[in-house]
Amino acid sequence: MDKKGRFYGIGIGPGDPDLITLKAVKILSEVDVVIAPAAKNESLALKIAKPYIKCHVKEMDFPMICDTDALKKIWSRNVKTIEKMLSDGLDTAFITLGDPMIYSTYTYILSRLCGYEVQTVPGITSFCAAASRIGKPIAEGDVPFAVMPVSDEKSVARVLKEFDSVVLMKVSRNYDDVVKQLKHNSFKGALVTRCGQANEKLEFDLDRHLGEKIDYLSLIIARRDNT
Amino acid sequence: MDKKGRFYGIGIGPGDPDLITLKAVKILSEVDVVIAPAAKNESLALKIAKPYIKCHVKEMDFPMICDTDALKKIWSRNVKTIEKMLSDGLDTAFITLGDPMIYSTYTYILSRLCGYEVQTVPGITSFCAAASRIGKPIAEGDVPFAVMPVSDEKSVARVLKEFDSVVLMKVSRNYDDVVKQLKHNSFKGALVTRCGQANEKLEFDLDRHLGEKIDYLSLIIARRDNT
Repeated sequence: MDKKGRFYGIGIGPGDPDLITLKAVKILSEVDVVIAPAAKNESLALKIAKPYIKCHVKEMDFPMICDTDALKKIWSRNVKTIEKMLSDGLDTAFITLGDPMIYSTYTYILSRLCGYEVQTVPGITSFCAAASRIGKPIAEGDVPFAVMPVSDEKSVARVLKEFDSVVLMKVSRNYDDVVKQLKHNSFKGALVTRCGQANEKLEFDLDRHLGEKIDYLSLIIARRDNT
Repeated sequence: MDKKGRFYGIGIGPGDPDLITLKAVKILSEVDVVIAPAAKNESLALKIAKPYIKCHVKEMDFPMICDTDALKKIWSRNVKTIEKMLSDGLDTAFITLGDPMIYSTYTYILSRLCGYEVQTVPGITSFCAAASRIGKPIAEGDVPFAVMPVSDEKSVARVLKEFDSVVLMKVSRNYDDVVKQLKHNSFKGALVTRCGQANEKLEFDLDRHLGEKIDYLSLIIARRDNT
């Protein structure tokens, strides 16, 4: 039997095409197939990776739907497609924005894939890129920090109570409440939208966007103001 | 008067030379001076950056000492040296391992530098690289995660109580206690030492190193085992 292909998970970085790593570039130019999530936000990953790809690109559907049964079926189908390619001896790279090990669809594939050689290539996270853009450190010295997608108000409150330095992802879900809670806990922060992209926005006055619809690709980096 | 130079803070990544970004490579090849911390662990940053540097490299002393007054003096002197170069119109890049905005000496310079144009270039963090090497996600879905350098036992206990997913940095300081606390809180984790370097070590059995001296460049990625 022929040799199985190797599976690569490749972090493409946060959105700025120059924030891809040499390792990602090298692997993209060497593999036999590149898989790119066909979802709206992920096509940016393909746009960034494209200049380095010399092989077939297979777009795969990873829909953001709430129907768990339907999702499981789609995932299984996708994993089977990938396993088929690997069994055929094709080195296959899955590309993802940011870092593959932090809030990425890649980990769902990784956990379902069995019996294949895997290499994961880390990427620049959106929150590291955002901190560089606003020019404020996420954490210094021995100060811990927390990263959390905004879900319910209670968990945001708990984290703001315990930590002096936080990264709040997906703030579009509950922006007004998040800003209220940050203020209540004496945090100062900045809102970064579409970091590193052509339509990037940096906002240091969080109040200015209260009541507005916030872009899905937005995060807040905030620190407790102890002055 | 001539134009002032621009100050760059450049994340070199975690230690694997291929995990540098295209942007870092580009800027390193264009600036007039590169500043590299002369401290033992930081010279790795220079080793990785060197192939792209076409200018003078100035090694600067950032000692790890506890005497705050002595440290402040050294910092002031370093910042003055940098300001002199920028005022002379030299584009100056400060290189640092990992990401410049997370536990980096760079932020101390950034906060003291005034009146100069600054651009910070994010880098791959040690914990993202470590997660890729052990093949385990740091966080999925809406699960928050915490990153903390190990300081006192109490703060580790608090974080393990609140979070299901943690990155513990500088575990060499108190390894035995950290492992005991992880176990007590039903966490499973892996120890990653000198990630991406030639002498990298991955260890999934944390107990094996109890009572041993742990390398300074070690971290643990752990998740609560809910099975």
